[in-house]
Amino acid sequence: MWRKIRIWLDKLTPAQVITGYYLLAVTISVLLLSIPAVHKPGVKVAFIDTVFTAVSAVSVTGLTVVNISETYSVFGYFVIMVILQFGGVGIMAIGTFFWMLLGRKIGLRSRKLIMVDHNQFALAGLVHLIKEIIKIIFLIECIGALILGFHFLSYYSTWEEAFLQGLFAAVSATTNGGMDITGKSLLPFAGDYFVQLMNIILITLGAIGFPVLIEAKEYLFRKRSEHEIPFRFTLFTKLTTLTFAALLVFGTVILLLLEFQHYFKGIEWHKSFFYAFFQAATTRSGGLSTMDVSQFTLPTQLVLSILMFIGASPSSVGGGIRTTTFALNILFLFHFAKGNREVKIFNRELDQNDIIKSFVITTLATIMCFVSVLLISISDQQLQLIEIIFEVCSAFGTTGLSMGITSSMSDFGKCVLMVLMFIGRIGLTSFLFIIGGKEKKANYHYPKERVIIG
Amino acid sequence: MWRKIRIWLDKLTPAQVITGYYLLAVTISVLLLSIPAVHKPGVKVAFIDTVFTAVSAVSVTGLTVVNISETYSVFGYFVIMVILQFGGVGIMAIGTFFWMLLGRKIGLRSRKLIMVDHNQFALAGLVHLIKEIIKIIFLIECIGALILGFHFLSYYSTWEEAFLQGLFAAVSATTNGGMDITGKSLLPFAGDYFVQLMNIILITLGAIGFPVLIEAKEYLFRKRSEHEIPFRFTLFTKLTTLTFAALLVFGTVILLLLEFQHYFKGIEWHKSFFYAFFQAATTRSGGLSTMDVSQFTLPTQLVLSILMFIGASPSSVGGGIRTTTFALNILFLFHFAKGNREVKIFNRELDQNDIIKSFVITTLATIMCFVSVLLISISDQQLQLIEIIFEVCSAFGTTGLSMGITSSMSDFGKCVLMVLMFIGRIGLTSFLFIIGGKEKKANYHYPKERVIIG
Ligand SMILES: [K+]
Ligand SMILES: [K+]
Repeated sequence: MWRKIRIWLDKLTPAQVITGYYLLAVTISVLLLSIPAVHKPGVKVAFIDTVFTAVSAVSVTGLTVVNISETYSVFGYFVIMVILQFGGVGIMAIGTFFWMLLGRKIGLRSRKLIMVDHNQFALAGLVHLIKEIIKIIFLIECIGALILGFHFLSYYSTWEEAFLQGLFAAVSATTNGGMDITGKSLLPFAGDYFVQLMNIILITLGAIGFPVLIEAKEYLFRKRSEHEIPFRFTLFTKLTTLTFAALLVFGTVILLLLEFQHYFKGIEWHKSFFYAFFQAATTRSGGLSTMDVSQFTLPTQLVLSILMFIGASPSSVGGGIRTTTFALNILFLFHFAKGNREVKIFNRELDQNDIIKSFVITTLATIMCFVSVLLISISDQQLQLIEIIFEVCSAFGTTGLSMGITSSMSDFGKCVLMVLMFIGRIGLTSFLFIIGGKEKKANYHYPKERVIIG
Repeated sequence: MWRKIRIWLDKLTPAQVITGYYLLAVTISVLLLSIPAVHKPGVKVAFIDTVFTAVSAVSVTGLTVVNISETYSVFGYFVIMVILQFGGVGIMAIGTFFWMLLGRKIGLRSRKLIMVDHNQFALAGLVHLIKEIIKIIFLIECIGALILGFHFLSYYSTWEEAFLQGLFAAVSATTNGGMDITGKSLLPFAGDYFVQLMNIILITLGAIGFPVLIEAKEYLFRKRSEHEIPFRFTLFTKLTTLTFAALLVFGTVILLLLEFQHYFKGIEWHKSFFYAFFQAATTRSGGLSTMDVSQFTLPTQLVLSILMFIGASPSSVGGGIRTTTFALNILFLFHFAKGNREVKIFNRELDQNDIIKSFVITTLATIMCFVSVLLISISDQQLQLIEIIFEVCSAFGTTGLSMGITSSMSDFGKCVLMVLMFIGRIGLTSFLFIIGGKEKKANYHYPKERVIIG
């Protein structure tokens, strides 16, 4: 009996294992969130809403159809934190796993290069890797919870309440879970720059990508004597960090420009700046908010939507098409327009396959989000177009920002969002693996023929 | 003096010549439309509106900020027809020219294959080609004008009026100009299936692509004895015609499904069918309309927007990303998901370069349209998001359908639309050529390094 199951399990592709893991995690989460003790006394939650909360927590998106603080008990808070933890770390591990998978498919010569570049990291086993991820995430969360907890002592009457709030906030920020037990996200701390800065740091550490964290650790704790050759960050780390920073700066500036005559009118410059900076950081994948996004003007909502669509780094707790995909698109477009077919950056050349893949992912994501918007516009005719676009991008980017329509949506609309959260989370690369299987070499060829395009 | 100009002209790249041609055509059109006699007595048109009409006519888009029938005299109608003519044929010639340019860059072995496939067509000179285009378009227009003119005798009191209407309708439909002198597009003929069918045929002949028309002619008039090998349509013809037909069927079906409870409620099935069929055909690039598109529901308007964004065949009078670009995207996505990197269709294999180009074009077009929507949402805050999206897609697809907001837009918004009409018309391939110049071979290489994407 057990042997049969084992044989069956061995036959599964990695992608199928991942889907299985995800579905299992959702199922367990649904069961956990159905325990009566997780709810506040007298509160009832519809089944679809429990499923939605479970999917949202496992995919660390943070879109909610119920108000967490009004619905769940303290025990429920802990259950949600555990789910966020598993969702965040699990997916990070999976992302990293795919990275290694990618590394394995590369020829011997390139592999040696990568070995040097990755500083023994790519050689370590999967188990060691996952241990590393868990250690780093736990460490970040503990420090965050302690700092926030002590700080919250001035906000809450009891130390239990303060540290509960601190712990939940730290877990929610680090895993980019985007959920809150304050009842209205970080709006109570809209004037507290310390809380905001802490959240920005925690969100960024979660969304910057696990390989970046590892490399940063290697860099900081390297033994100088051992390294005769200078330490070199991988192209991935450079590219994703640069894109991350660029999106942060771009987001902050554009928000200030678009809203200084509207939302920020009459607000002091430093408060406006922190509002904009926090909002730009949270669209990477965080989902916590210091402002009511439905109060922004249409252009700002469009910009936020596209920032969420781009999302966080690969192999992080975030979703979307991912920073590197976006970077490769833009880099190739510039090079293509100048007549170059090869993309050179940081003294390295990008692989043609990665470039094709980046365009495939962007196009597929665009089509998917468009179809989702279309479907919801059919099923939920009461909604404004921008509300639908915003919510769809938030789900696909597993960001969790909302214009406040999630709870009033039809069951069909909620299902569309759940599918988007799932795909956004595991990433389109993995998703394509799942529906397609691995690359095949063609064993026969037809004559090639060009066609006019564009 | 003349020699200097000649030397200067010789130095220009084909792409720069095309831009020059286009700007010259717009300038001349503006001058022509500024002659007092083109206006109806007492009518004044703002300069920006004259420029807009000129750009719209040269790019055969058909978006208008003034009502043609109320603004222009009969002389004005003829001026507009001449501009549409030059715009339509000129651009067709340019598209075909680029096709030949593409053909020239292919190696000797492939060229022989193409020679066979293209049936001596690719060998003919550019002058001969342009003559062919003009002949075919003129023939189609004359036949269309005569048939419609005779038919209109029952609508209009004088034969002059009937044939003027017939001529303008035929020119506007064949060049996909999308303009009308009835005052409200084809709405007066919403019940006249004959007029609609004629328009659909003329629009399709203009938008199906010039190479398709040539090949169809070759096929129909070939001497059987000369051809021992069976006639073979090019991959381009097969692909673009199939996509064209698929979009037509898809558009009709989806419109019927989305609107049978709304716009088509209480309307007989055959009238509904013709409404939907005409609308699906006109989104390819026609722009004439039998219905008020602002009366549709949001999902329908989204579908129409995407259909306009896709646009017509390359080397036709239409715009957008083009049917073949869309087809290559979809085909590659399917093959990619199944693990294939080569795309096989109709016993031919697609060129990897064409596939990359198709994704570059789609991504670039998406970014461009998004930025345009964003800019207009900033400059014209009174507009609904769907109105902006619809208008932007209509301009980029040079379709000319409108939800009726063009005339009320700010000058900045009108300028954005003009730029889109220009780029949509000459096509993104040519546009990339213009800003970038021709393909370069890199003379040095960096080591390749892969990055995690998606
Ligand atoms: K999130
Ligand atoms: K048109």
